[in-house]
Amino acid sequence: MTDHFDSTGSPVLVALDWGTSSLRGFLMDEAGGVLAERASPHGIQHLPHPGAAGFEAAFAALCGDWLAACPDLPVVAGGMVGSAQGWVEAPYVPCPADARSLADHAAWVEVADGRRLLIAPGVLYDPPDAAPDVMRGEEVQIAGALAENPAWAASACVAMPGTHSKWVRVADGKIVGFATHMTGELFAVLKNHSLLGRLMPAEGVASPQDEAAAFALGLDAARDGEPGALPHQLFATRTLGLTRRLPPEALSHYLSGLLIGHELTASLAMTRRVWPNGAPLLLIGDAGLCRRYARALDHFGATVTAQLGNTAPRGLFQFAAAAGLIAAAP
Amino acid sequence: MTDHFDSTGSPVLVALDWGTSSLRGFLMDEAGGVLAERASPHGIQHLPHPGAAGFEAAFAALCGDWLAACPDLPVVAGGMVGSAQGWVEAPYVPCPADARSLADHAAWVEVADGRRLLIAPGVLYDPPDAAPDVMRGEEVQIAGALAENPAWAASACVAMPGTHSKWVRVADGKIVGFATHMTGELFAVLKNHSLLGRLMPAEGVASPQDEAAAFALGLDAARDGEPGALPHQLFATRTLGLTRRLPPEALSHYLSGLLIGHELTASLAMTRRVWPNGAPLLLIGDAGLCRRYARALDHFGATVTAQLGNTAPRGLFQFAAAAGLIAAAP
Repeated sequence: MTDHFDSTGSPVLVALDWGTSSLRGFLMDEAGGVLAERASPHGIQHLPHPGAAGFEAAFAALCGDWLAACPDLPVVAGGMVGSAQGWVEAPYVPCPADARSLADHAAWVEVADGRRLLIAPGVLYDPPDAAPDVMRGEEVQIAGALAENPAWAASACVAMPGTHSKWVRVADGKIVGFATHMTGELFAVLKNHSLLGRLMPAEGVASPQDEAAAFALGLDAARDGEPGALPHQLFATRTLGLTRRLPPEALSHYLSGLLIGHELTASLAMTRRVWPNGAPLLLIGDAGLCRRYARALDHFGATVTAQLGNTAPRGLFQFAAAAGLIAAAP
Repeated sequence: MTDHFDSTGSPVLVALDWGTSSLRGFLMDEAGGVLAERASPHGIQHLPHPGAAGFEAAFAALCGDWLAACPDLPVVAGGMVGSAQGWVEAPYVPCPADARSLADHAAWVEVADGRRLLIAPGVLYDPPDAAPDVMRGEEVQIAGALAENPAWAASACVAMPGTHSKWVRVADGKIVGFATHMTGELFAVLKNHSLLGRLMPAEGVASPQDEAAAFALGLDAARDGEPGALPHQLFATRTLGLTRRLPPEALSHYLSGLLIGHELTASLAMTRRVWPNGAPLLLIGDAGLCRRYARALDHFGATVTAQLGNTAPRGLFQFAAAAGLIAAAP
């Protein structure tokens, strides 16, 4: 395992971003910088053994040598490792939530050699007039993003594109509300398991012009759609192919535009309501997907304030500091 | 194969309702009554042999004896048998469409013994301001429904719940426009292939009260949703389970209510626009699914004029008459 060094400080923390399909470890210095970074495929659904032994083995394989060299380093983890299917369950904390409330409700897990890891909880948003919503992992990324800029901590909208995209409202340094959109999963199940995927070729790509036109057509349909329109508009992915209005290679881009467009239509209406005078709009997530969302937001006339990289290590550092395991960064 | 006799007239027509997953045959009398009815599993995706031989074998197995007894009977067919994946392709005819325009654009297919079958085309709706839409099979059912009542032929809305629900506008005896909603397929792929299905138990049913409450909760969410809301509202199927607001057995009923509710929200807005003074609303489809839609329509304050049984044989009779293969019913 090769370490990738970004910093020259002294190690004070091992931070684990432990999701469903992957595990990432960060050796961090006293300023919150990353000294070394590693990744393994041992997400909580892909462990080397079942049960607690699988978590222990994945943990030891990823960073046993770091801890052999520095036995006293505290270890923290966030993400699905704290879910009901994780190593130990750290139940959701309610909004408003920040690094401190995460630390106050974190869960300890004991490793066989006597070491303890502190696992961050997820966050529950439970509005009186709508169904509850949950996140697990994103709250850590947000804590990291807010540590980067006090203006964002004061008030911001954080958009986190993905399988289950999150649109998060931040005020006074806290997560005050959020909405999950199943955009990425809808795209995947419709492409792979519905009639809509039948006309999409397994190979071949659309020209950049065709791709852009199909994506824009989907975005426009979503923006102009009336309430309840989506189950009907989805079918156009098929009819635009059947009638050869779009080339087969471009059909998935229409579907992508339609689904992202629905997410943006609802989310931008929310931002106009919550922040009539505007607010910073931050994008956090996979770089390619964030570029796609940035194009869609531009098409909708919205401006992205900043597109952030991986803010999870910085967020885990904030969590560890709030829990008193390390001194807060200066 | 046992025949089921409903009538005592003389046979004048063999009519085939030939879909993706099943084949139904009807021996019909001169008044459009059904003398005998048979079904086989040989839908166009489940034929006994590949290619044309499969269609011939399925046809001969279903009604070879009818035609041995009455060799001169004309034979007509409707449904996916006329699609690009069918026996012969009968390309879509544009709206406005009726039994006559179907007959004018029907396709003949030759059987090995020299017999010919007339296959009905599907219908294309191609509005200037939206994506095109298509149907294949429903147009025959509608022709049958309109033959039952002149008032419906003058002006009606026909709702056909299913995997791909259709909402059809009828005026002056013709299909003038329609919209397909992927409601049934969305429900199936989300239940079987997405995270939403994970909390739904494979066995066990909700109490009638829990089922009704969950269904109504989904309907209300759809009715009150803003444009673009569905990708977010779907996630509540998970969070209502995670937070134990709904019992696991009721989660699928929330999802069903949410999706049907979106279809109804868009479709009832269309009916209010097209028929500000109201119009007959007909339901055609699977009896259990029609009951579920009737409950949902009642919840939305809409009144169903009539719920019809299988109108396909009557529609195939109208198609055969328009094609001059039989005398029109008196």
